[in-house]
Amino acid sequence: MTRRHLEQWFAVTPAADSTVTTATEPGWLSHDAIEQVRGNVPLVYVDAIPVRLDGSGNVTELGLLLRQAADGTISRMFVSGRVQLNERVREALIRHLEKDLGPLAMPQVPPNPAPFTVVEYFQDPDRSGFHDPRHHAVSLAYVVPVAGDCQPTQEALDLAWYSPSEAVSDQVIGDMTGGHDRLLRLALAHVGQLP
Amino acid sequence: MTRRHLEQWFAVTPAADSTVTTATEPGWLSHDAIEQVRGNVPLVYVDAIPVRLDGSGNVTELGLLLRQAADGTISRMFVSGRVQLNERVREALIRHLEKDLGPLAMPQVPPNPAPFTVVEYFQDPDRSGFHDPRHHAVSLAYVVPVAGDCQPTQEALDLAWYSPSEAVSDQVIGDMTGGHDRLLRLALAHVGQLP
Amino acid sequence: MTRRHLEQWFAVTPAADSTVTTATEPGWLSHDAIEQVRGNVPLVYVDAIPVRLDGSGNVTELGLLLRQAADGTISRMFVSGRVQLNERVREALIRHLEKDLGPLAMPQVPPNPAPFTVVEYFQDPDRSGFHDPRHHAVSLAYVVPVAGDCQPTQEALDLAWYSPSEAVSDQVIGDMTGGHDRLLRLALAHVGQLP
Amino acid sequence: MTRRHLEQWFAVTPAADSTVTTATEPGWLSHDAIEQVRGNVPLVYVDAIPVRLDGSGNVTELGLLLRQAADGTISRMFVSGRVQLNERVREALIRHLEKDLGPLAMPQVPPNPAPFTVVEYFQDPDRSGFHDPRHHAVSLAYVVPVAGDCQPTQEALDLAWYSPSEAVSDQVIGDMTGGHDRLLRLALAHVGQLP
Repeated sequence: MTRRHLEQWFAVTPAADSTVTTATEPGWLSHDAIEQVRGNVPLVYVDAIPVRLDGSGNVTELGLLLRQAADGTISRMFVSGRVQLNERVREALIRHLEKDLGPLAMPQVPPNPAPFTVVEYFQDPDRSGFHDPRHHAVSLAYVVPVAGDCQPTQEALDLAWYSPSEAVSDQVIGDMTGGHDRLLRLALAHVGQLP
Repeated sequence: MTRRHLEQWFAVTPAADSTVTTATEPGWLSHDAIEQVRGNVPLVYVDAIPVRLDGSGNVTELGLLLRQAADGTISRMFVSGRVQLNERVREALIRHLEKDLGPLAMPQVPPNPAPFTVVEYFQDPDRSGFHDPRHHAVSLAYVVPVAGDCQPTQEALDLAWYSPSEAVSDQVIGDMTGGHDRLLRLALAHVGQLP
Repeated sequence: MTRRHLEQWFAVTPAADSTVTTATEPGWLSHDAIEQVRGNVPLVYVDAIPVRLDGSGNVTELGLLLRQAADGTISRMFVSGRVQLNERVREALIRHLEKDLGPLAMPQVPPNPAPFTVVEYFQDPDRSGFHDPRHHAVSLAYVVPVAGDCQPTQEALDLAWYSPSEAVSDQVIGDMTGGHDRLLRLALAHVGQLP
Repeated sequence: MTRRHLEQWFAVTPAADSTVTTATEPGWLSHDAIEQVRGNVPLVYVDAIPVRLDGSGNVTELGLLLRQAADGTISRMFVSGRVQLNERVREALIRHLEKDLGPLAMPQVPPNPAPFTVVEYFQDPDRSGFHDPRHHAVSLAYVVPVAGDCQPTQEALDLAWYSPSEAVSDQVIGDMTGGHDRLLRLALAHVGQLP
């Protein structure tokens, strides 16, 4: 089932914005506050590429969510989200992984704090090749092995696992937007599995 | 000459805040705007550790500025500053390096976009060991070889070059604040020169 | 119990050489063969620093073996050994980890094939700061989380777990030889835990 | 001009073996010695991907040599060679870069000793995807900016510079053997330039 089919099946509402919510939880921002921030500074984001490893540490599968992307399309994408005020980067990674993959995913965030690459999302799609129509974000990208049971929660419609060669196939790549297909290839290169 | 002496010699004014200025330049924020941002989200920063290399790529010296730190002290510190809205991380690195080391420094920003470590500055000094009394900032740290003539400009009082063993001596470390002495050791480890 | 005490308690025999054995297993070399190799080329080695992680991926403990080092002393050291002919680097890592930590250690070799640093062991102790009296070896060093039960096997006398600050204490550092204390600090810096 | 044309034009002799030479220079091995080593252990190699950078550190071009590869074909390939006994990895990098690019290339070997990836060459082409018919080699791969004038020397027929998108075109990839086309893509991913 492709993205285009899904967009026909679902009544796609204007892009859900996971950075905005009612101000009852600490760290979450009102609509006005986030708009003011977006007009002034880049946001700090994390991207997590969930992977399954064999016993020797080779990546056998990558996990891709099917969900509404920032541009409103139903897309295959990685776990991604904002780092909140006074939150450690690791805490943000765990929070977003558990929110998207469920509480039993057992993500193994790597001990090295350095991301394998930095993804610069701009409102201008041509600025860096990575695009977010909502704002400028600087995202730290990590490959995160998950050992437990994953069940997509909240806004995701589906979670599917692909081998490295399946993941870079035209069919899967065709369902990715905003430069996530390039992030996929950067992640595969980082783990030595780029076909 | 130590930091304490300098603080006696100079009439230290409240911490100069390089993120605030008159709104005439694009990317710069008014005092009110920056305060509103700081109360809502972490800022994106870059830290650059200027180094001199020998012909084989070994680090022979590290450059440390003497300037007023975020906490108001006169400290030995690296090149550090904010990434502005719609600015590439590389552009921010070059901008801050040229601002602090002068236009002839010829900094050689590495081709790999991933920082060697991520420094999380919090207002709470105990949160991560890295401290900025003004705000929460997530900083991408890079070791940057400089090949040209460096002349400290603007707010810096001095730029001094230290060998790896001098840099980690009590005398130099004693003039560093906010966790920059730890960043120094992380940088030396990254280049295989930690004594 | 310190290294010096142990050297008095044990009748220390000439350095056991894990690269030499009877030629019954594939990959293992006769004494003559290894001597000829050592006189001609550097050997390929791996070093693995076993760590325990908390739920967020922070290193809480490092594992150090107590065993006879290459120089004949009883030392605190990491898992270390040769990559054999036609063996993948990952396979060598797993083989040495299981040999030293036991079959239930469940080492999680990271998916990225790049080591966090390269350790160059020379017969001349002053060449690089890393010393092996037997030969020149180029070692790929990895931080490897272990999730299971570790029981030192074969030639190790003991396996002890230390917090980052304990590991760099004079007492522990004093029991390390050949530059392993420096490798320890490089590993701690890589995981952002250098005190 | 493609590889196939060149193979018709040149009387291709059996693969020149840069690891073998007369024993007059220190570090070089006799034919018998290298054969004995190859039958017993993997060799330590370095691969260097020469790049041109713009003022911000973005890779604008990659340098590819046209030379006889290990498999006897005339191929587009990177700078590659053995680390000799008692030679530092950095020294080997500089030596091979100067041998292949000429004495005025001014290679800027990065200060970080860790390679961006590890390439495992096996005699079996299916073992890792990287192939050397002569031996098993474990190669540390580095991206090396070159600032000076490059003139291919010794065994290379040509040195050509390609933009990232040209480098991954079918025409250039088609002239690469032994897995070097994959190494090219891993290098481009490392510098954030994989198209």
